Amino acid sequence: MTLQVAEMLSAYPKDLGRVDQAKLTKCIEECLRCAQACTACADACLSEDMVADLVKCIRTDLDCADICQTTARLLSRHTGYDANLTRAMLEACAQACKSCAEECERHTKHHHCAICAQACRDCERACRDLISALG
Amino acid sequence: MTLQVAEMLSAYPKDLGRVDQAKLTKCIEECLRCAQACTACADACLSEDMVADLVKCIRTDLDCADICQTTARLLSRHTGYDANLTRAMLEACAQACKSCAEECERHTKHHHCAICAQACRDCERACRDLISALG
Amino acid sequence: MTLQVAEMLSAYPKDLGRVDQAKLTKCIEECLRCAQACTACADACLSEDMVADLVKCIRTDLDCADICQTTARLLSRHTGYDANLTRAMLEACAQACKSCAEECERHTKHHHCAICAQACRDCERACRDLISALG
Amino acid sequence: MTLQVAEMLSAYPKDLGRVDQAKLTKCIEECLRCAQACTACADACLSEDMVADLVKCIRTDLDCADICQTTARLLSRHTGYDANLTRAMLEACAQACKSCAEECERHTKHHHCAICAQACRDCERACRDLISALG
Repeated sequence: MTLQVAEMLSAYPKDLGRVDQAKLTKCIEECLRCAQACTACADACLSEDMVADLVKCIRTDLDCADICQTTARLLSRHTGYDANLTRAMLEACAQACKSCAEECERHTKHHHCAICAQACRDCERACRDLISALG
Repeated sequence: MTLQVAEMLSAYPKDLGRVDQAKLTKCIEECLRCAQACTACADACLSEDMVADLVKCIRTDLDCADICQTTARLLSRHTGYDANLTRAMLEACAQACKSCAEECERHTKHHHCAICAQACRDCERACRDLISALG
Repeated sequence: MTLQVAEMLSAYPKDLGRVDQAKLTKCIEECLRCAQACTACADACLSEDMVADLVKCIRTDLDCADICQTTARLLSRHTGYDANLTRAMLEACAQACKSCAEECERHTKHHHCAICAQACRDCERACRDLISALG
Repeated sequence: MTLQVAEMLSAYPKDLGRVDQAKLTKCIEECLRCAQACTACADACLSEDMVADLVKCIRTDLDCADICQTTARLLSRHTGYDANLTRAMLEACAQACKSCAEECERHTKHHHCAICAQACRDCERACRDLISALG
């Protein structure tokens, strides 16, 4: 089961400009993966007996899920491309992933937090790689 | 590059009840895949020279993307599970996928519509399979 | 500070069909209001000392916020209107609001739960009124 | 019909810190208003006979709706507040509103674009006011 991000990118009918398609594809995939991991991690934290210790983790998970999801949508659109907006959203997404990773890394005894922290770090890197590629 | 839906499901700290985990995982994955395909298809339609012929397709894409995304989030939560709500959302999602598939199937000369139609059919089936499994 | 739902509806360039515009406007407004109340209530619950008693409330808040938000978007689109999809989404939204209201009503000693319960009941009613008006 | 943003803020059980509550309330309200206007404007553009002239407008509307909605959610959460993330998201939101306003202002002969442009300018200002207040 894979996403079809690259296939959809290839099917875009107009010129995609000088964007690095591999880095763009990677970033969309990581955003979708991270958004799902954060949504599931927030819910798993809610079911932990020590939920009171995890309230900050739940909050960063919720923010990170929303921001990654919105970033994936933005990056999936190419019509009327706006480099300034893309860069600003990628900066916010990298920041959300960094904050969420740091919080989840404090709770890696919970396996869901360990998986989620890794997804956040992967997504943060993909965002920063794409920012660099934007020039 | 795969999603980590199954890993996150396994990491849930409490009992998941009698839910069919394979069908649940499949349905979350198809919802995420379909949401991304629909978002990208709407944007690709916007860039077609004959965009005026594709306005209904763009609209169904936008609805289907929103509904699949929300369904994926709902299905990623297990705390305080509500079978009635899950079923109602899956019914809405199956309907959105059916409507969007039927519309995209009228425009398969555009490769993005062909890919998107298939993603919608796959997601519709996964929703219906999960509804059946809910009993 | 009011929303501009009615103004945007009046500015739609094509015929809106036989839809009851007052009930449609009301339903979009209630969905947006309920979505914000649920998002804020989930966060307020997270900050309560007895968060462990509120985990089901947080979960229903999160679902209800997502579903109301998606319903508001669907109802804000009129191009290529699909009555079956509109009805299915309204049914899911009414169900989400009902579940969330019932849960929040158990915690009305927390003022955020009391406000949120009322917003959910108002939104549930607006959804059911619009379903009736769809015929 | 008003939103209950201020009431929910007052019901938050913990200290909100030094945040300017009036500016925060205003910004959440403007984000919700702008998100709805952008969703409706994109759909109204789709129904214009000259939709081909409006494809960039539709795209900026879709981005702006997603970003404003996510910003409203982020700002509605206070638990585990993260100033860096709040600022980064507000910067992205102000940028999205600015881009969308500039595009809609080119099409004010369409009343939905005129309303939407104003909503975007109001939201951009509310975001910048809140950024200033964050210090």
